[in-house]
Amino acid sequence: MSELPNCETLLLERDGGVLHVTLNRPDSRNAMSLAMVGELRAVLAAVRDDRAVRAIVLRGAGGHFCAGGDIKDMAGARAAGTDAYAKLNRAFGSLLEEAQAQPQVLVAVLEGAVLGGGFGLACVSDIAIAADGAQFGLPETTLGILPAQIAPFVAKRVGLTQARRLALTAARFDGREALRLGLVHFSEADADALGQRLADCLEQVRRCAPGANAATKALLLATEREELGSLLDGAARQFAEAVTGSEGAEGTMAFVQKRKPNWAQ
Amino acid sequence: MSELPNCETLLLERDGGVLHVTLNRPDSRNAMSLAMVGELRAVLAAVRDDRAVRAIVLRGAGGHFCAGGDIKDMAGARAAGTDAYAKLNRAFGSLLEEAQAQPQVLVAVLEGAVLGGGFGLACVSDIAIAADGAQFGLPETTLGILPAQIAPFVAKRVGLTQARRLALTAARFDGREALRLGLVHFSEADADALGQRLADCLEQVRRCAPGANAATKALLLATEREELGSLLDGAARQFAEAVTGSEGAEGTMAFVQKRKPNWAQ
Amino acid sequence: MSELPNCETLLLERDGGVLHVTLNRPDSRNAMSLAMVGELRAVLAAVRDDRAVRAIVLRGAGGHFCAGGDIKDMAGARAAGTDAYAKLNRAFGSLLEEAQAQPQVLVAVLEGAVLGGGFGLACVSDIAIAADGAQFGLPETTLGILPAQIAPFVAKRVGLTQARRLALTAARFDGREALRLGLVHFSEADADALGQRLADCLEQVRRCAPGANAATKALLLATEREELGSLLDGAARQFAEAVTGSEGAEGTMAFVQKRKPNWAQ
Repeated sequence: MSELPNCETLLLERDGGVLHVTLNRPDSRNAMSLAMVGELRAVLAAVRDDRAVRAIVLRGAGGHFCAGGDIKDMAGARAAGTDAYAKLNRAFGSLLEEAQAQPQVLVAVLEGAVLGGGFGLACVSDIAIAADGAQFGLPETTLGILPAQIAPFVAKRVGLTQARRLALTAARFDGREALRLGLVHFSEADADALGQRLADCLEQVRRCAPGANAATKALLLATEREELGSLLDGAARQFAEAVTGSEGAEGTMAFVQKRKPNWAQ
Repeated sequence: MSELPNCETLLLERDGGVLHVTLNRPDSRNAMSLAMVGELRAVLAAVRDDRAVRAIVLRGAGGHFCAGGDIKDMAGARAAGTDAYAKLNRAFGSLLEEAQAQPQVLVAVLEGAVLGGGFGLACVSDIAIAADGAQFGLPETTLGILPAQIAPFVAKRVGLTQARRLALTAARFDGREALRLGLVHFSEADADALGQRLADCLEQVRRCAPGANAATKALLLATEREELGSLLDGAARQFAEAVTGSEGAEGTMAFVQKRKPNWAQ
Repeated sequence: MSELPNCETLLLERDGGVLHVTLNRPDSRNAMSLAMVGELRAVLAAVRDDRAVRAIVLRGAGGHFCAGGDIKDMAGARAAGTDAYAKLNRAFGSLLEEAQAQPQVLVAVLEGAVLGGGFGLACVSDIAIAADGAQFGLPETTLGILPAQIAPFVAKRVGLTQARRLALTAARFDGREALRLGLVHFSEADADALGQRLADCLEQVRRCAPGANAATKALLLATEREELGSLLDGAARQFAEAVTGSEGAEGTMAFVQKRKPNWAQ
């Protein structure tokens, strides 16, 4: 079992194949500090090659997901100069890149404030479950700054058409609207419904083979940058390896024997 | 008139400018066998340059569209080794590439099981009409394998956000949900409504000039890979050729004379 | 204050930070003539570097947005030959490219006919507000011609899945359906509701810093063609410049002081 780093800004809890990560700076609505960015990256790295971790559930403590960047870090960077700001900002982008590429299924549970950097994090999840009452928005330009690291992930998530309106008006919207925009996959009326939806999704993930899921996620992400023909050539080789490998053997055997495969126990 | 190949797994029927292709292995819910892949590719090739064929309607016999790959072919490939699997898999990807690029309007009528490979075929149609009760899903990873050739077409069809959830949870969903996800263009309550919708769509296609439609489809697909400026330069030349060509002359003349153009008779 | 060109086909009106541009050829439902294309390009160029212009509102006189290309120009080009058609067509594509890249927030108010070229213009707006009763459609292929310059912008706007059906069937649809397809951001029942929505959107734009908005829009458009890593590197430098620049200083100060920033007065 992979060893998890000690964290000051995160709560970590393992439950079978699921790693629960809770942003835990409730006094600042879990504002994304430089320390939190570093800890999140360390946690993702620690479990990256651990196929026993099947899903990572990311949520916030105290009723909010994440209200954006941390003002104190901003003040600190101001003292240190322009380069410090650029570095601070880019570190958050690296977190988004790494979370996007994480082999495990990344589930975001989105309650309360989902603003700026929190909005960006939501955009790299594989499954996003919102509360109807969540508050989404990109307030950056109202502060005279840019949703710099977030913009590419928002455009990819909801398409350019919606991204440009959201970023250029800083409009606020709720979970139902996030569902309509395709930003999230589900929006639920209350905590019970949200908990049930999360449980259902994790149950579905458990039915999927860990290695096949990791390879499929990588393949889907590769469609963004690879030429179709060579992508399909590589995918055919991956298919052949999977079907002749241990997961493929177990999965097809279980199917014929009408039993659950060993990863779904 | 183009000559059609003899087929064992497909029913073919011509009706004016429409070629009806029915997957016809109802005992296995029209599972996509290697023979069927070959026959579909041969049929598409046979009519590719025939502008008298304006639309191709693809559906399944016996109440199902297509339940995915064929287990017997899988077993055969197992005996032949890893390379045989890769070749088998890639052949299906070639079918998807060719169906995507087919100059005619490709209409998919989606009833019953639309799973795995069947899901992939649905993703390359120009018009997709589902029955409300159809069952969509990507079950591959529950079998320890990958939706390898299908993944790029699914990601293109419904976007990365939905594709990642569907592929990593193997969730099943119906025609109404397929409509909400943008996978299909229509979902209809019963066979009558579905038949009427199909007739309406084919009537619309008949009003469009065959050559102009083929060129427009190629242009839309090219937007996926060509740089905007050169694409627009080429499109302007195509526009000039179309408007000065026989279809453009007939179309604008018919418009002025308030009559149907000759291709819409 | 930037100087606006004299226009015969457009009405221009300044109202604070908003430039209202009205297509004004109501007798031909504001068909896009070569003169109108030229004047629109000149107006966009005139205000391009003027950050005092925060938003450009584009609409049509007489109850229609724009019914497409102008038949008389077509006839003129016919006399002049194929090259003249290509040049005429490409000029409209250049307008779309320039409108897409315009630093200001481009708002389209879409009433009545939104056809062909008018549909294309709608596709490059940052905020699109339709009337429920608007009529959208791509009639080109029914005339034997191609939606040549428009196709890439339509595919980008609503995705390939919807674009292929719309272009290959020439289907007509209303504002509610345009909302469902993600072509517009709002659809309103009557003129009052539409006017109120426009006012609300412009109020939101006013809260966003002009320079930050222009940089954010450029960044969003760059996500279409730039590689992610280098994009994020550049965005981090832009972020640092913005936060240490005058807008960032004013915006964060105003936030701390719980007052409106100077650009939102």
